[in-house]
Amino acid sequence: MSKKAFLSKAKATEIKASIPTPFHVYDEAGLRANAQAVRNAFSWNSGFKEYFAVKANPNPFILKIFSEYGFGLDCSSMAELKLAKVCGYKGDGIMFSSNDTPDEEFSVCNELGGIINLDDITNIDDVERVLGTFPEVMSCRFNPGGVYEVSNGIMDNPGDAKYGMTREQLFEAYGRLRDKGVKRLGLHAFLVSNTTSNDYYAALAKTLFELAVDIKSEVGVELSFINLSGGVGIPYRPEDTPNDIAIIGDKVHKVFDEILVPAGLGDMAIYTEMGRFMTGPYGGLVTTAIHEKHIHKEYIGVDACAVDLMRPAMYGAYHHITVLGKEDAPCDHTYDVTGSLCENNDKFAIDRQLPAIDRGDLLFIHDTGAHGYAMGYNYNGRLKSAEVLLHPDGSFDMIRRAEKLSDYFATFDCFPEWDELKEV
Amino acid sequence: MSKKAFLSKAKATEIKASIPTPFHVYDEAGLRANAQAVRNAFSWNSGFKEYFAVKANPNPFILKIFSEYGFGLDCSSMAELKLAKVCGYKGDGIMFSSNDTPDEEFSVCNELGGIINLDDITNIDDVERVLGTFPEVMSCRFNPGGVYEVSNGIMDNPGDAKYGMTREQLFEAYGRLRDKGVKRLGLHAFLVSNTTSNDYYAALAKTLFELAVDIKSEVGVELSFINLSGGVGIPYRPEDTPNDIAIIGDKVHKVFDEILVPAGLGDMAIYTEMGRFMTGPYGGLVTTAIHEKHIHKEYIGVDACAVDLMRPAMYGAYHHITVLGKEDAPCDHTYDVTGSLCENNDKFAIDRQLPAIDRGDLLFIHDTGAHGYAMGYNYNGRLKSAEVLLHPDGSFDMIRRAEKLSDYFATFDCFPEWDELKEV
Repeated sequence: MSKKAFLSKAKATEIKASIPTPFHVYDEAGLRANAQAVRNAFSWNSGFKEYFAVKANPNPFILKIFSEYGFGLDCSSMAELKLAKVCGYKGDGIMFSSNDTPDEEFSVCNELGGIINLDDITNIDDVERVLGTFPEVMSCRFNPGGVYEVSNGIMDNPGDAKYGMTREQLFEAYGRLRDKGVKRLGLHAFLVSNTTSNDYYAALAKTLFELAVDIKSEVGVELSFINLSGGVGIPYRPEDTPNDIAIIGDKVHKVFDEILVPAGLGDMAIYTEMGRFMTGPYGGLVTTAIHEKHIHKEYIGVDACAVDLMRPAMYGAYHHITVLGKEDAPCDHTYDVTGSLCENNDKFAIDRQLPAIDRGDLLFIHDTGAHGYAMGYNYNGRLKSAEVLLHPDGSFDMIRRAEKLSDYFATFDCFPEWDELKEV
Repeated sequence: MSKKAFLSKAKATEIKASIPTPFHVYDEAGLRANAQAVRNAFSWNSGFKEYFAVKANPNPFILKIFSEYGFGLDCSSMAELKLAKVCGYKGDGIMFSSNDTPDEEFSVCNELGGIINLDDITNIDDVERVLGTFPEVMSCRFNPGGVYEVSNGIMDNPGDAKYGMTREQLFEAYGRLRDKGVKRLGLHAFLVSNTTSNDYYAALAKTLFELAVDIKSEVGVELSFINLSGGVGIPYRPEDTPNDIAIIGDKVHKVFDEILVPAGLGDMAIYTEMGRFMTGPYGGLVTTAIHEKHIHKEYIGVDACAVDLMRPAMYGAYHHITVLGKEDAPCDHTYDVTGSLCENNDKFAIDRQLPAIDRGDLLFIHDTGAHGYAMGYNYNGRLKSAEVLLHPDGSFDMIRRAEKLSDYFATFDCFPEWDELKEV
């Protein structure tokens, strides 16, 4: 499959006239169409709710959009709970999935009426100690251990993951929570990240649905919801096959009918907690080529760097690049595309076949809508970029300003001797 | 070699009473003793200057200390140039080593009188275009290409690095810069990061000194300084052999006498640009054990996370851990020490042998003085910690406050609809 930028050179140039590169831009039309597709895919389940993983894109303008689709938010920290609050999310619109959790975050989640998803069995005591009581609705996180095979050799190793409870702990936890008076209980598990198989969610669902049946028979607890968490991936590379969320929804539906309905658990609400799938493809990083270097290899230096997008540096991740205005030019040059950090892993692409690039060309780095801006750091004192929302009618708005030097130095604002650092 | 924390449990507890964990703490006595040792090691060279790599620890309180030793700063961005300025560095106290450089940074460096170290031959035109003239003092950065062997099989691959000029470009650059009227010219090269061999600097020096001799004979330019850049590492693991800077200085001295003096280049100033070696071992991250988890493995959850120290997540780097107050207890437990991020690489240690750890124990994570706080991000909306300077007399000062939620949300301060995010 070829990968096309959702932004034309003309539109990028228009945006750049008021918002200097680099900037992340998000495609509202794409975000909305995908959100609707997710809702449709699970419309067979009346309790369905997608909890968007805030960590993927913690911008309130984006979070607000998802509320229009009846979605909730998956929060993992105080900052994310606060974002949920200001965007109007509350009650079962918030799922708090955290690990190694500070006490005060349990409190704030509870004040918002959010669902606390317990990562560990000891968290039962933590919640009682911190809240003095138990919320009416709670969830527990499962870690099956060992190696988990999704299909066709696609597998991961939950046994090495820090998340969740063992099966034995889970059963104990549900019994204790029931005895503590919790009315509605749910089950959550995250096993594999960024799968590009339509079979993953159904395989995970089968595991969790069978577990729910066992919990009913062995503990006597009828769960109210099952959260399939994340793991539905996106095609970063042109040759990757994209997931089809309609097929995924159908496959989960089939397993639901096979396992839960016969067990008398057909009222179970299905939750998802996708981040990457909801926003990843609908964001791009627009950056200007500012330097061309010919040494032992050919380099194109751009005005973005790992500060704007860390996945290539941290994971060696592939992000496709389109040279705007040269979409149809032959990819007959081999470049490393680099940022300015004094850090040799600050490369957006290595030995990438691209059209000839000139200084001033605008590059569109694909699939930065999830874990892009969100993972930015300030290494070398470099500042993070602005974010832009491209509306369906072609108009656009800045939805986060770029950082200023005074932001970078903010944590010295209580030291009079460094007052000069407060200047912008 | 055993690794000992420079902080006692009593002192950590005393600090924690006013500055909550996690925090980075720096050992001023250690920083100063090491700075003095570096100065002594190169005292045979009258022009010697260490340019501390700001990117390793961009805290003005730390940068100020180095000015007392006659050191300069290695800057790579606008923010770092500004830090240099507020700390009183100027003129040849600033070396600006950048790549893929925005125009305005050349201007600001020049206004401060700093030495611009040209990463690429095309930067000659950039400097002329931006400044309209050339500074009296300039430097060029060399990339030898290929694979570089330091000694005993220790090698790296400069041919894959984005930095510097080829030999041919370098020769051309010096000729052009001389013709443009630049009075004092220097040579710089960075080849290998974090070596733990006393031979690296001398091997690099030999390469650069021989190059300087060739430049004199082939271009007719007598260089004024040679910058050995960084690469002198620190022993992260107990079994690593530490570098001995006195031996390193002697070895460089020997090569200097063998190559530069006979070539009539005995007035050459030697510069270094160390970051990790200057601050790495003199910083530690103090964090409290807040959670203990027994599932398929044993986990200790702490209140720090990759936001405070990213090297283990990004590079799989080893950082030694001392459980304060249990220095002499047997290391008979195997733990993963984890932070709270929803990111499974957020682990400070994997399968680490440590003493039994209880909730409330204070852990000292070693060697965070360089590329520790500096590489922090805000993933999951987690906030960066405070920094503390422990003075030689045992007193201490906070030298950077911890981030607040309002800092995290600062880039929404121009949007009235999100005013609630300005609250602390």
